[in-house]
Amino acid sequence: MNKSRAVVLVSGGMDSCVTAAIANLQHELAFLHVNYGQRTEQRELKAFHALAEYYGVQKRLIANMTHLKSIGGSSLTDMHMEVTEANPETLFHSQKNDIPTSYVPFRNANILSVAVSWAEVVGAEHIFIGAVEEDSSGYPDCRKEFYDAFNTVIDLGTKPETKISVRTPVIHLKKSEIVKRGVELKAPFELTWSCYTNEDRACGVCDSCALRLRAFQIAGIEDPIPYAQRPRYSSS
Amino acid sequence: MNKSRAVVLVSGGMDSCVTAAIANLQHELAFLHVNYGQRTEQRELKAFHALAEYYGVQKRLIANMTHLKSIGGSSLTDMHMEVTEANPETLFHSQKNDIPTSYVPFRNANILSVAVSWAEVVGAEHIFIGAVEEDSSGYPDCRKEFYDAFNTVIDLGTKPETKISVRTPVIHLKKSEIVKRGVELKAPFELTWSCYTNEDRACGVCDSCALRLRAFQIAGIEDPIPYAQRPRYSSS
Repeated sequence: MNKSRAVVLVSGGMDSCVTAAIANLQHELAFLHVNYGQRTEQRELKAFHALAEYYGVQKRLIANMTHLKSIGGSSLTDMHMEVTEANPETLFHSQKNDIPTSYVPFRNANILSVAVSWAEVVGAEHIFIGAVEEDSSGYPDCRKEFYDAFNTVIDLGTKPETKISVRTPVIHLKKSEIVKRGVELKAPFELTWSCYTNEDRACGVCDSCALRLRAFQIAGIEDPIPYAQRPRYSSS
Repeated sequence: MNKSRAVVLVSGGMDSCVTAAIANLQHELAFLHVNYGQRTEQRELKAFHALAEYYGVQKRLIANMTHLKSIGGSSLTDMHMEVTEANPETLFHSQKNDIPTSYVPFRNANILSVAVSWAEVVGAEHIFIGAVEEDSSGYPDCRKEFYDAFNTVIDLGTKPETKISVRTPVIHLKKSEIVKRGVELKAPFELTWSCYTNEDRACGVCDSCALRLRAFQIAGIEDPIPYAQRPRYSSS
């Protein structure tokens, strides 16, 4: 039986890596990476291709959405804004209204739209995205209800015969559970990259590093990538 | 009283010109143009800036979404596909399933996503788009229900304090009614461009030219832009 095709959004981070591992169980994969002027663009791209090699993915698309950089409004793309250092008090117990400076306005809708356009052309029926609701630092476009609404837009905005839906297999998992699921599926964490600031060794202190390190620490697994510093977060 | 700000999607064509004229009645305007590798990119951009000058719009954003070109799947961006000549039999009486070759998959969702990102950064509350349901050649993302669903996605995918909604003031008008509305509002049709194929004089025979010429002919108004040929369509 032929497997149906799935587009997987692969940033190169741990969540998208585990999402790819899950999609790989049932589908033929196509990998999409989006450059939106993020600081660690080159490092992410390296992780993307390494993951694609690992899973034997031929169909790859790099979408250059540099207009998101020119729009600005986020510390991830705007070099004049400082990336906040992780504050465990607020980071791990974020309230609904705490939108971090790294928020790129409506980023995931931009990324999903590209994914749908590509999926329609390559005949994919699913779009896998590694969004995580609970540990997502309060980004408004990481919630399940956002993706449900987006699926309605896809239904209405594509050809009548097109059936594409967004799948979010890790959205309700804690980040530590994602680590464990990845280990079960032999997801190659050593190839991934999550740090917002550096391209050599991960800084260990930006929001993204803090969430990742804490997840590995809670899961009781050693994160295989190199860090400039490796604080312990799991006691908080 | 300060006017609230509105982002207007300005392709440079007649529908977006009249949409800008309508938005201009109540709002301070910001103009967004999207390059997606369309054949007539430079000509459209010229029309965009001319319209911006006419309405005194300082805030302008050109978003280069060239990834839509690399995705392909449309005769507007894929030079290997032929742009279909207008066939009045099907063009003016299109069925729901007649998707023309000029359809760019999920294009309007891509464009709206950029508009929302920009609107959130510049503090605009409205996004005006000149989508037209009846005369839209059967594009699935030109229907009112698509925009209603997209407004839900905006609500869920932006900051809690952000209130942005998509406005489609000409969506239920016939194209000839748009011409009349434009004349009432002194919309500068002479600055607009609609042709899919040429950059010098409009061809007069592509789908876009045919719909435009017919609209002006039914409205009983002379289209002020130059055409290579100017067939009569209004009798059909």
